[in-house]
Amino acid sequence: MILEKITSVEDLRKLPPEELPPLAEELRQHILNVVSRQGGHLASSLGAADLILALHYVFDTPQDKLIFDVGHQAYVHKLLTGRKERFEKLREMDGCAGFPTPAEDPQFDPAVCGHAGTAISTALGLAQTDRNCKVIAVTGDGSLNCGISLEGLNNAKSCGKNLIVILNDNKMSISRNVGSIPRYLNAVISGGFYNRLKVTAKRAIRILPKHELIHRLIRRWEDLLKGLLLPGSFFEQLGLRYIGPLDGNDLPGLIKSFSKIKHLEGPLFIHVITQKGHGCDFAVKDPVKFHGVSGFDPLTGETPSSAKDSFSAAFGRAAVALAEQHKEVCAITAAMTSGTGLTAFARSFPDRFYDVGIAEEHAVAFAAGLAAGGRRPVCAVYATFMQRALDCIYHDVVLAKRPVIFALDRAGAVEDGPTHHGIYDLSFLRAMPGLTVMEPRNECELEMMLAEAYGLNAPVVIRYPRGGTSCGRCAIAPLEHGKAEIFKSGTGPVLWAAGAEVETALKVEKLLGMNCTIINTRYLAPFDRQTALRFAREGRLIVTIEDHVCTGGLASAVDETLCGVVSARVLHFGWNSAEILPHGKIGQLREHNGMTAEQIARKIQDAEEKR
Amino acid sequence: MILEKITSVEDLRKLPPEELPPLAEELRQHILNVVSRQGGHLASSLGAADLILALHYVFDTPQDKLIFDVGHQAYVHKLLTGRKERFEKLREMDGCAGFPTPAEDPQFDPAVCGHAGTAISTALGLAQTDRNCKVIAVTGDGSLNCGISLEGLNNAKSCGKNLIVILNDNKMSISRNVGSIPRYLNAVISGGFYNRLKVTAKRAIRILPKHELIHRLIRRWEDLLKGLLLPGSFFEQLGLRYIGPLDGNDLPGLIKSFSKIKHLEGPLFIHVITQKGHGCDFAVKDPVKFHGVSGFDPLTGETPSSAKDSFSAAFGRAAVALAEQHKEVCAITAAMTSGTGLTAFARSFPDRFYDVGIAEEHAVAFAAGLAAGGRRPVCAVYATFMQRALDCIYHDVVLAKRPVIFALDRAGAVEDGPTHHGIYDLSFLRAMPGLTVMEPRNECELEMMLAEAYGLNAPVVIRYPRGGTSCGRCAIAPLEHGKAEIFKSGTGPVLWAAGAEVETALKVEKLLGMNCTIINTRYLAPFDRQTALRFAREGRLIVTIEDHVCTGGLASAVDETLCGVVSARVLHFGWNSAEILPHGKIGQLREHNGMTAEQIARKIQDAEEKR
Repeated sequence: MILEKITSVEDLRKLPPEELPPLAEELRQHILNVVSRQGGHLASSLGAADLILALHYVFDTPQDKLIFDVGHQAYVHKLLTGRKERFEKLREMDGCAGFPTPAEDPQFDPAVCGHAGTAISTALGLAQTDRNCKVIAVTGDGSLNCGISLEGLNNAKSCGKNLIVILNDNKMSISRNVGSIPRYLNAVISGGFYNRLKVTAKRAIRILPKHELIHRLIRRWEDLLKGLLLPGSFFEQLGLRYIGPLDGNDLPGLIKSFSKIKHLEGPLFIHVITQKGHGCDFAVKDPVKFHGVSGFDPLTGETPSSAKDSFSAAFGRAAVALAEQHKEVCAITAAMTSGTGLTAFARSFPDRFYDVGIAEEHAVAFAAGLAAGGRRPVCAVYATFMQRALDCIYHDVVLAKRPVIFALDRAGAVEDGPTHHGIYDLSFLRAMPGLTVMEPRNECELEMMLAEAYGLNAPVVIRYPRGGTSCGRCAIAPLEHGKAEIFKSGTGPVLWAAGAEVETALKVEKLLGMNCTIINTRYLAPFDRQTALRFAREGRLIVTIEDHVCTGGLASAVDETLCGVVSARVLHFGWNSAEILPHGKIGQLREHNGMTAEQIARKIQDAEEKR
Repeated sequence: MILEKITSVEDLRKLPPEELPPLAEELRQHILNVVSRQGGHLASSLGAADLILALHYVFDTPQDKLIFDVGHQAYVHKLLTGRKERFEKLREMDGCAGFPTPAEDPQFDPAVCGHAGTAISTALGLAQTDRNCKVIAVTGDGSLNCGISLEGLNNAKSCGKNLIVILNDNKMSISRNVGSIPRYLNAVISGGFYNRLKVTAKRAIRILPKHELIHRLIRRWEDLLKGLLLPGSFFEQLGLRYIGPLDGNDLPGLIKSFSKIKHLEGPLFIHVITQKGHGCDFAVKDPVKFHGVSGFDPLTGETPSSAKDSFSAAFGRAAVALAEQHKEVCAITAAMTSGTGLTAFARSFPDRFYDVGIAEEHAVAFAAGLAAGGRRPVCAVYATFMQRALDCIYHDVVLAKRPVIFALDRAGAVEDGPTHHGIYDLSFLRAMPGLTVMEPRNECELEMMLAEAYGLNAPVVIRYPRGGTSCGRCAIAPLEHGKAEIFKSGTGPVLWAAGAEVETALKVEKLLGMNCTIINTRYLAPFDRQTALRFAREGRLIVTIEDHVCTGGLASAVDETLCGVVSARVLHFGWNSAEILPHGKIGQLREHNGMTAEQIARKIQDAEEKR
């Protein structure tokens, strides 16, 4: 095993070149093993293995800096930079994070990664600060759709002498890419245009008379046309020198190219083609499934069959049902078709489905336009990524009072860590005038809420966590606008739960052995102040449980309602906004934050005893 | 007067073409008169007058839709679409809004305008909904730097048959434009490259032998090169058909061009060159000053000399002082150099100053990169525009714990209206782990806070409103991290004021004739819970006054602190998050929302009497 000998990038650079391809194989196999056990991002990590290996081999990291975009492709980077041991516990609280982060390694990870599109801008900033190192932004073709990347490219020329942008082009974001830039990249790769031109030019020179003026003209044409005719003229027009396309899974070739590139002055744009899932048949065959996985058989790629229902699946079903009833309904996502459960919608209503690529701001403004024309768009994006488009929700939808329904999937803590927790959305959204914000306690209620949202004919947000409750077909009490549901009446503490935390509340009640009132909040905005006041006036302990930071979430809604009006005893359980919530198994995170049913029950007991 | 006869677009279309140029002059004069009196956006409105007139004359508005980007250039649009009378009271509560908005005219204003970059995306959405109308996005060259515009262009090809993007290119956003796209547009306009090519090609054809193969080759080359050699190949690569550049102040020429363009299938990209301030000498000479103005002499352009100090000016001074002391300090803005008070900084430290154009997300991620390399960036952006980059503040700065100082200018209500009020930032920012949020009560305290922020060496936000208190050189008590200042001790109600609202609190106390305690909040995060609890425990009435919506602002901070801990009497004065705060003079808005000192005093009196 060569990998065993590598404990640092210095070890790596001592290897003779011929040992690199077998090392790449070992790295891939190692990633496959760990991810099959721990879950994680497989296909892109396998695809980028050779590229990252070559970068560390040729460049002087950590003096030269690598900044990954999104960063789920960077497992090899972690394995080569002294994190082999922690990688065994990938995505656990005391193991490696799923993404590069300075919290884990300030030297090798100069920027936080997780959300798409930031690498070029961050790298540009870093490149300003040290004239003697290279700053290499490794971005993906999916990220290139993203507004920030394009803003970064637009600013690259003026301050990017040390900047190298590597485009890791695997033809995919999470799903297959969309839009003109990916199409353009494809045209560049196929190279048809350029090749035809070269052939034509050669022929012309052969047959033209050897006239001095003609040759001078051809030379002038060549100069003039060079910038435009070479593949990548798009990037040349943005002021970057385009080099490529390179085969990103040809390790010797990459090393040769990078060794030359190392000595060029930037800003450079290096176009590298990689194969998502490279070296692993089942991942190559189904890169969408093996983009991010929970666990699988490392030999066959078989995943444990999950008969469990999920919020995403329920949302997908409800969206299809809504679209069947109302022809104005359409669906929008930003490279999350499968993740948000919209695969069936896309298949059933291809003309009413829009995957706009990783471009959340465009997704929201586009939805506003559709709604302005009488359509009824449902815009499904992960909660954490919707942070990108908060301004568009306000500016284009809320201010224009457009009836766009936002489905925020993965709202709540997730294993992926700080960059991916969807626990801040309510703080901003609750302050938006006229915006209804709902949170369903289970899949059936989600389906009902989507229908309800349609009926409201106004801007609505529905937020729900990853996974589900597998409630089956269950009865849901009718929704009443802005009204919480008294899920269970009792005489003890009043447990206000937001969404799926009703499950936690039920467990808490059992542990307490008290006859609690359990309230399904349902509406975070408008918040049911009346019900909150009523129970507080009864002098009972008011408890809030939510999968969101307390600041700005349900806890704040309750505090804002009660403070100054009624003297209440209150306990809040939600994520702590004063610290960065780390990555880890959900159970670990809850334990860490005092949010398990046991911990909540204990605190309630204490409060009741102290009384 | 031709303008008098025009009450609708139908009237306009009945005019013979020769009456249009004098009408354009009348419109310009009218805008000049109204803006000189009411304040508003002058230079861009004058520049785009011919363009907008031509669009309404040729296209069938409101069946064909015009969507303006930003929209401050759209005064002629308002004057031609039945809003002449309300335009007299431009930017007053019962007059025209400064920007197009469906709230004012649902037919002619299909989208909310105000923040840059949304027109293309919204137009794309609207164009999907009706195959029989044209949807025309009128965007600016400044907006084209903006990520959303580029995301929109990337998606234009697939769904833009009815889409016309008009680029109103006046070489400016608020300040002069930056980046590669504007540079590219300049190259296109000067046409040097294209013209040289055409000349060369003509010469080549003249001197080449009349050989069949040669001519065939030239024709093939021509076909192949057409897409790339024509100006606008950048846009052609994005899948839009480029037409232009057109002279945007040649009205007959525009009408001729648009009459042809009307019948083409899209997506089209029409490049129109306009002169900012056209028709008004002083506005042409100083388009930055006359971008947005408060009032001036319509003949000379002289503005009343304002000896008043402002928060922006104080920030600019403090930033220069900081940069003089510390060589790591640098400043970033997003097309708001003059507005944020950074003109002197830019002049004194050109190598440490970055205007990245209208690209707030890039600005923040770029700052994170600078900070990663040891620089100490100060990033100054208007509060409302920073909504664009909330995710980058979280993802790239807060999570990486980078010591970036954000200066949020224009935080609070402004005359420009809903799109420009900076009254939502705290809701999200208060929930960010480890982010310090300060608000100075006057210019001197702002200067002190900037120095303090530098010392913290952590992510910091300082928010302050437009205008200032003109405090002069005044003594400021030393800052203590996370501690409010007891500005004045008393025995009556406790008035918590955020920032410049300390002034309001002082007025309120005077009106009340009570001996109040006045607290200068200083830190919104971390919030001084101890002081809040102390005064609440004394049983005194707690009053909060802030230039922010109550939800998520100071009011919430107080409620979160007190609720469940101490039974307090509380009154909150801030903007109402349940309704969209309209445009209008600040006095009108405060009156409307119950936030004048008189209204506040009355409510406090009532509360104290009821006790």
